Amino acid sequence: MSSPAVAFATQNHARFVGELKDLLRIPSISTLPEHKGDCRRAAEFLAAELKRIGMENVRLIDTSGHPLVYGDWLHAAAKPTALVYGHYDVQPADPLDEWISPPFEPTERSGNIYSRGAVDDKGQVWAQVKALESLLAANKGLPINVRVLFEGEEEVGGEGIAAYVASKPDNLKADFALVSDTELFAEGLPTLCVGLRGMIYTELEVRGAKTDLHSGMYGGAAPNPFVALAQIIAKLKDENGRIEIPGFYDDVIAPSPEELAAWKSLPFDEEHYRKTEVGSSKLVGESGFSVLERTWARPTLDVHGIPGGFTGAGAKTVIPARATAKISMRLVPNMTPAKAFALYKSYVEKIAPAGVEVDVRLIHSGDACLIPVNNPYVQAATRALHDVWGKDTVFIRSGGSIPIVGDFDRHLGLPSVMMGFGLPDDNIHAPNEKFKLQNFELGIRSLIRFMEEAGH
Amino acid sequence: MSSPAVAFATQNHARFVGELKDLLRIPSISTLPEHKGDCRRAAEFLAAELKRIGMENVRLIDTSGHPLVYGDWLHAAAKPTALVYGHYDVQPADPLDEWISPPFEPTERSGNIYSRGAVDDKGQVWAQVKALESLLAANKGLPINVRVLFEGEEEVGGEGIAAYVASKPDNLKADFALVSDTELFAEGLPTLCVGLRGMIYTELEVRGAKTDLHSGMYGGAAPNPFVALAQIIAKLKDENGRIEIPGFYDDVIAPSPEELAAWKSLPFDEEHYRKTEVGSSKLVGESGFSVLERTWARPTLDVHGIPGGFTGAGAKTVIPARATAKISMRLVPNMTPAKAFALYKSYVEKIAPAGVEVDVRLIHSGDACLIPVNNPYVQAATRALHDVWGKDTVFIRSGGSIPIVGDFDRHLGLPSVMMGFGLPDDNIHAPNEKFKLQNFELGIRSLIRFMEEAGH
Repeated sequence: MSSPAVAFATQNHARFVGELKDLLRIPSISTLPEHKGDCRRAAEFLAAELKRIGMENVRLIDTSGHPLVYGDWLHAAAKPTALVYGHYDVQPADPLDEWISPPFEPTERSGNIYSRGAVDDKGQVWAQVKALESLLAANKGLPINVRVLFEGEEEVGGEGIAAYVASKPDNLKADFALVSDTELFAEGLPTLCVGLRGMIYTELEVRGAKTDLHSGMYGGAAPNPFVALAQIIAKLKDENGRIEIPGFYDDVIAPSPEELAAWKSLPFDEEHYRKTEVGSSKLVGESGFSVLERTWARPTLDVHGIPGGFTGAGAKTVIPARATAKISMRLVPNMTPAKAFALYKSYVEKIAPAGVEVDVRLIHSGDACLIPVNNPYVQAATRALHDVWGKDTVFIRSGGSIPIVGDFDRHLGLPSVMMGFGLPDDNIHAPNEKFKLQNFELGIRSLIRFMEEAGH
Repeated sequence: MSSPAVAFATQNHARFVGELKDLLRIPSISTLPEHKGDCRRAAEFLAAELKRIGMENVRLIDTSGHPLVYGDWLHAAAKPTALVYGHYDVQPADPLDEWISPPFEPTERSGNIYSRGAVDDKGQVWAQVKALESLLAANKGLPINVRVLFEGEEEVGGEGIAAYVASKPDNLKADFALVSDTELFAEGLPTLCVGLRGMIYTELEVRGAKTDLHSGMYGGAAPNPFVALAQIIAKLKDENGRIEIPGFYDDVIAPSPEELAAWKSLPFDEEHYRKTEVGSSKLVGESGFSVLERTWARPTLDVHGIPGGFTGAGAKTVIPARATAKISMRLVPNMTPAKAFALYKSYVEKIAPAGVEVDVRLIHSGDACLIPVNNPYVQAATRALHDVWGKDTVFIRSGGSIPIVGDFDRHLGLPSVMMGFGLPDDNIHAPNEKFKLQNFELGIRSLIRFMEEAGH
């Protein structure tokens, strides 16, 4: 079923893509202090567009970090209210030399648009804005009430929005949240995400000598923080992928038999996934669990980097005074970040080798979540998706974390409809991130139809 | 006993210090390509001074890396010939923020001169040059024949000088080498170093996925190269400091009972060393061996840094595609770098966890060495040192590596007199490297008197 709004979107697609490129050119890397101004620019860009298309009460809301963008349209009497969420910040672009085209010069190739943020999440935020524009332009109004809330700190823990949501402001009153920061399970397969892993992101610092020492003079007597860190990490996770922190798995609940059965029927080929997405010689992880279970329903631990020491070209014979590992753990529903961090911290302090001091710091955390599939907004979404994609929706989880979904639930009582249009090979958080332009177009159409269905 | 040359050195001390500062201002960091020009400048600075003081045939000798500096004075008929060796290159200065005064702005504080290279090795090279100047100025000649050979790649493996020495050129014919790149065992205690550890410096690269991956999406299924690296490193060295590479200790020979007895009589307090030099909560290493044995006569393994992955501020949730550890091992007399590297490489390849590929690369290596204490040049050195310092010389080893000493022996048949004037707390290879100015002065005097004694 088409609609005047869908027709408007189709006619204006080329313009929509051009505008998206302008947004992508702003390097709004939230974790790097030198890009603070760019984050604000991206927020202002979105606010200006919300105003232009006819949203009301548009404004930036300052936080302890990067600003939120708010706007609303509340004239659909007796209709439900959606809180439309996305984020305008992006991950760092390094390693830069692996990008085929520069990360902040959006480039079209083979039906995709390549850029940092193309799909995570600027492309999807822009699809939301363009769906709103199409509805407002075609109908002089929206089929439901809408509050828009975009943030600029999703990639760094979302502290600002979390504090704002926790304060339960009147202008966030709604019936459900619409979150577009997820992906299709496979090309052409309409997908709703109904579960997310939580996480804790930590820094584990190990200190040995009071200063860097010559490894010839002191090697054999002075503690080496890198060796100590390796010994600690090797005790955090065994070679079968099992986390060895005592009690870590105590609160894990397994997916229901129905959910597991549905996952088994998904078009997923582990060998294809290994070859095309991961590209390693072998997949790893806990035996006895499928890849989907391991990435959606089991906690994990990863090391992201170990800054410190000598990292230049060539050789430096130094025993560094300190080393710091960036270590995160993904959590599953029913685990809590606070408990996971406490177990981890006390275990690390216990196993630290003699001669070094350890300092375990929590950088940020987020709750896992599970959305009931029988709520009316999820049902409206499946009708809209069937209309646009011609297929039944599959319900999946994601291994990633969108902490705000947990906050919407806990503080505002909102279930989230997680409707996203990325693809598994879109290289999010990696070089050559992309968004398929057809999915950008069908995404806008799906969002339009969803709001129409939600307003019926 | 004084001499006209010693008197000249005493009168000119202030000038000598000023000139040393000029040399120290040149940031001749051999491992960093951007300092290639500075290395050449340091070489030219030395060559110009050798010419000025009256050395002959002075020239730079190009190598595959930074140039050698050569000069000679060969008019002491029927006297022995010394090959005087030192290096003008220095270690990188990072971490820069831990320096009290900038590393390349030599600064005097409390009787020391602080600068990268102050004692390792520019200060000691300058002491050699100033000893030669004093002898030439006071006597219009030298008491022995002298060939000077300075290199600029000691901190990066000394490939250029090694190739040159291996070619056995006529102009390196000599009777012994005089190497000033070591230290006094303690303040005021004349010391000759008669043993050095060898080393292999390696890079261990671990590769997992074909590209960086999002740790939410892929965590639990994709191999993590940092975790794999930690697991490998934890199997290289146990928590008691013992290297677990099979066969690694097979060729180790213990010091003689006499040597061990002499070491026991040295003024060495492990607790003082822990507190003042290392500054860690505890010393580490193999039980059953003293600290001097562990650092002089036992092999060790150290990790210097683990470049790759995310090392910026804040959080990036990435599973890096690759990680590389800079790992070195110190070797003791009778071990060979080639065998140690082969054992290490095959062990690492065997223990690498499933899902990752490893690449083990040898960056550079050097032989360990032991010098017999009964050779006449070592004996001449002890007489000179007694004269200047008023004490008997102690014979020590060093845990560090001076690969060229092994090359002088193997290719040119030269025993080395390792006479150096650093102190154990001079922070070599670390921030706030220093050289005690009094040791610079007594060092020049000792080198003058040594050449006089060697010519008797």
